[in-house]
Amino acid sequence: MNLASCADHSFILTLACPDTRGIVHAISEWLVERQCNILESAQYGDPNTGLFMMRIHFSAEDSSHDSEGLGREFLPLVSRFDMDWSLRDSGKKPRVLILVSNQDHCLHDLLYRYRIGELNIEIPAVVSNHRTARQLAESHDIPFMHWPVTPELIHNWDIKLLQLIEDETVDFVVLARYMQILSKTICDRLPARIINIHHSFLPGFAGASPYAQAYKRGVKLIGATAHYVTQELDEGPIIEQDVLRVDHSMLPEELAAIGRDIEKVVLARAVRYHAEQRVVLNGKKTVVFR
Amino acid sequence: MNLASCADHSFILTLACPDTRGIVHAISEWLVERQCNILESAQYGDPNTGLFMMRIHFSAEDSSHDSEGLGREFLPLVSRFDMDWSLRDSGKKPRVLILVSNQDHCLHDLLYRYRIGELNIEIPAVVSNHRTARQLAESHDIPFMHWPVTPELIHNWDIKLLQLIEDETVDFVVLARYMQILSKTICDRLPARIINIHHSFLPGFAGASPYAQAYKRGVKLIGATAHYVTQELDEGPIIEQDVLRVDHSMLPEELAAIGRDIEKVVLARAVRYHAEQRVVLNGKKTVVFR
Amino acid sequence: MNLASCADHSFILTLACPDTRGIVHAISEWLVERQCNILESAQYGDPNTGLFMMRIHFSAEDSSHDSEGLGREFLPLVSRFDMDWSLRDSGKKPRVLILVSNQDHCLHDLLYRYRIGELNIEIPAVVSNHRTARQLAESHDIPFMHWPVTPELIHNWDIKLLQLIEDETVDFVVLARYMQILSKTICDRLPARIINIHHSFLPGFAGASPYAQAYKRGVKLIGATAHYVTQELDEGPIIEQDVLRVDHSMLPEELAAIGRDIEKVVLARAVRYHAEQRVVLNGKKTVVFR
Amino acid sequence: MNLASCADHSFILTLACPDTRGIVHAISEWLVERQCNILESAQYGDPNTGLFMMRIHFSAEDSSHDSEGLGREFLPLVSRFDMDWSLRDSGKKPRVLILVSNQDHCLHDLLYRYRIGELNIEIPAVVSNHRTARQLAESHDIPFMHWPVTPELIHNWDIKLLQLIEDETVDFVVLARYMQILSKTICDRLPARIINIHHSFLPGFAGASPYAQAYKRGVKLIGATAHYVTQELDEGPIIEQDVLRVDHSMLPEELAAIGRDIEKVVLARAVRYHAEQRVVLNGKKTVVFR
Repeated sequence: MNLASCADHSFILTLACPDTRGIVHAISEWLVERQCNILESAQYGDPNTGLFMMRIHFSAEDSSHDSEGLGREFLPLVSRFDMDWSLRDSGKKPRVLILVSNQDHCLHDLLYRYRIGELNIEIPAVVSNHRTARQLAESHDIPFMHWPVTPELIHNWDIKLLQLIEDETVDFVVLARYMQILSKTICDRLPARIINIHHSFLPGFAGASPYAQAYKRGVKLIGATAHYVTQELDEGPIIEQDVLRVDHSMLPEELAAIGRDIEKVVLARAVRYHAEQRVVLNGKKTVVFR
Repeated sequence: MNLASCADHSFILTLACPDTRGIVHAISEWLVERQCNILESAQYGDPNTGLFMMRIHFSAEDSSHDSEGLGREFLPLVSRFDMDWSLRDSGKKPRVLILVSNQDHCLHDLLYRYRIGELNIEIPAVVSNHRTARQLAESHDIPFMHWPVTPELIHNWDIKLLQLIEDETVDFVVLARYMQILSKTICDRLPARIINIHHSFLPGFAGASPYAQAYKRGVKLIGATAHYVTQELDEGPIIEQDVLRVDHSMLPEELAAIGRDIEKVVLARAVRYHAEQRVVLNGKKTVVFR
Repeated sequence: MNLASCADHSFILTLACPDTRGIVHAISEWLVERQCNILESAQYGDPNTGLFMMRIHFSAEDSSHDSEGLGREFLPLVSRFDMDWSLRDSGKKPRVLILVSNQDHCLHDLLYRYRIGELNIEIPAVVSNHRTARQLAESHDIPFMHWPVTPELIHNWDIKLLQLIEDETVDFVVLARYMQILSKTICDRLPARIINIHHSFLPGFAGASPYAQAYKRGVKLIGATAHYVTQELDEGPIIEQDVLRVDHSMLPEELAAIGRDIEKVVLARAVRYHAEQRVVLNGKKTVVFR
Repeated sequence: MNLASCADHSFILTLACPDTRGIVHAISEWLVERQCNILESAQYGDPNTGLFMMRIHFSAEDSSHDSEGLGREFLPLVSRFDMDWSLRDSGKKPRVLILVSNQDHCLHDLLYRYRIGELNIEIPAVVSNHRTARQLAESHDIPFMHWPVTPELIHNWDIKLLQLIEDETVDFVVLARYMQILSKTICDRLPARIINIHHSFLPGFAGASPYAQAYKRGVKLIGATAHYVTQELDEGPIIEQDVLRVDHSMLPEELAAIGRDIEKVVLARAVRYHAEQRVVLNGKKTVVFR
């Protein structure tokens, strides 16, 4: 169920904990006791790591429930099962900061989905090291910040970004073809909260100029990968990937044109999955409850 | 989790009932009381029909549990929630009767998957209105029955088939490109127990010669559809579909060659989903817990 | 080769004629005599209709060549082989009139591709029976015309459209989710010059509300089809199709959201193929020289 | 046009040469002079390498033509344009030697396509370092050779293989999941004549255990790649690739099961393309005239 189409008074609970008997029972009891109805539920137990992960979307008949109160009442289960968890009011839109460089096709696509309500998010700002996207952002009434990146300013840049994230209570950051490498500081401070779109089917063609690499290697499909950003370039947990067919006659710029169509949908899916709390980290991988 | 890779003492419970609060809680309690562990669980509530559907794969630590005993103990929940349900020992392989005509690519493919253990089924017999597949079936040590179909014999044919299904305790029937229309009697007696592969992307090109129809219409993709057989030809609930790209240069026989590759995988997926109890009927549609 | 990436002084010749020996020889001789180089060439002979179709993209070293002069010189071949043909300067951008109703995702997508030069076209105007798209069109400096459609005005509407097409020397018309049925007059006057996007995988779900139909039927993939408009609704020659996977949990509006991603790329591909003269009619089908 | 469906007295000419004006003209003239009709023709000029590549399938009305005679008559064009070329009677089936190890799904698939005439080839022998596939090969009346591979025997093995290729006038070799690395000697002697299927979407997951690597990395699609074998492991020119979607719940053996479906079709396509002379080398890449 796409949250954008859900007007209910409802909540999303996600959790990860060591797998053991009775977790589902305890949670469903907790829900029944509070007159809550499960709207959607998905779970996965990883046989290799022994980790159990779950996402439950539930509605509450009692309109006095809020995520803070429910969260407090959930704490006994958290400590009993040693959970990583979050509980979020599904009506509260995640706040997403978008970073972009010169190529604005992903930004353009995300803003359209945002405008027609397909993405259930708020966008407090667009930040760019170029001025290209100013008009696009501002035509959607979104503040645009032009923050050039230079080696000597990079430390200040980090501070400004973290400040902006705090000031705007940003939930997560999207690199919509932002062609700068983020610092270790930023990556460490925002684990599983920065989504990047890489324009190849990782792990193939990591690094620079993937379409030129793809052309040179003569692959018959090209792809795109949305992943969480970690310090290791293009090595973060993969959220979504897709590919399209190409052929020998296509030059790198034609691969790039086809690639844009993949990048846009792959990033948009990843943003929606994350915004709807569908992605749970499982070590260096993700579990995506689609 | 593919059942073929699960060696545990485990069971699969599937159910459908009117959606109401407390179903998951009651089931999880029932499982906890019996020291059972959930291996895999998926559910869906249809907002339009108010039907709740669930599939749980669970293991039992107590090796004295069997599906008959557990089933008896599950009856109170069945009546409390008004469930359609089944509970099956995952180690007990479903028995699948395969019907085929002249074209044997789907049979050939299914028997290979069966031989290497990819499909966790038993095949008590292959029935055909032609002799073509005799050698193929017998080389897999599967009895082959050549039952010609003629208008005057059709009543007897039905009786023979139902007798064979009873004698061999057949769980479900697969029409692996069986080019005869089954009678109303057969369809009525085996609801959601006969899987057909139709060589088009339904609802397009129902009926005869779909590749010739596709050629004539000039479509750019061709497909295949696995569905449950009902009295309405090619109208039964769809289990799985897929497509592949074609182009203007391909003649009907080339579409058919490409189509074989889709038919094989679509039918094999549908057989696996059904054999693993992943398909639940939802009116004229299916819910597939993949 | 994408024309958008071809800066040469070059031409595109397309033709269809009865298949016979010597066509390629005659054309290649004609090109050699004029110091022209083949950049890209594709051909297809339909064994059923006996029709031969060809597309040649060639460059001319002699910069005095123009499409008018070359066309005149090509006439002897036209009459010798009884050709339907066209010869176009590849630097001359086709002029495309876009019609749209309330849903503007295809328009939004086409205008972006137009703006970044991915589609090598001119857009002299956007016409709509709603006012929704005015800002979008005008922000790209494209005149927007709000032409309501009412039964009593439909005759005038036809006259206005044909006049606009003449005044603006429109090469072809794109229905980018234009939810009105064009009259017989319009269809007859613009054969293979109007491209529609239908939001289903035709021939399945022709007519109204295809996503609601798809939901009701329970298909496992949904698609979109770009086709030339003829008098028979949704029956015109298909240019391009594609599909994406869906599942049982998706409501019609979620199918529509996924469908938008297919509609956009399928229509954009069809527009590009047509604008680059890659589509040749073959009876009720198309040959697409991709 | 699939050659398997072409009963004509026809020939396939493939060529690669430096791009220059007049090649198509010269070839079409040569064909017209011999009363030959083009059935299918495709060409590609690489703007980066300046190489022109072409494949023409043509029929000859004069039944006295044979590939040897035509080839002799073609020599003046070969030297005029400095061509790499081949000319083959399309009725003469390429002779294909298949190597396999324990996993026989690709062999099983190829032999089925061979048996029903979908692949227009001869298979003089199957060679394996295991005995597993003996029955499968022999049930298709194909000689099976069990040639164990040991470090001390590898030199003899090479000699035996080359001898077999000579004795049986083998056109090309298919590694249908043959899990041994071929020697430099073999690779050097058979350039672009050995096709391997690698069970990943190259360049991702080259080397050993690609499904285990894919599981570990958490990719959302898995693929297979058919390529020519060169000395650099998994680095040879790619002929065909495809992918299928997977998810977080799938263990390596389930990835492998899904992967088999991709491997089979990707290898079968590559074998058909090569057997029909549709693949032309272009440096370290291929041009595939599908």
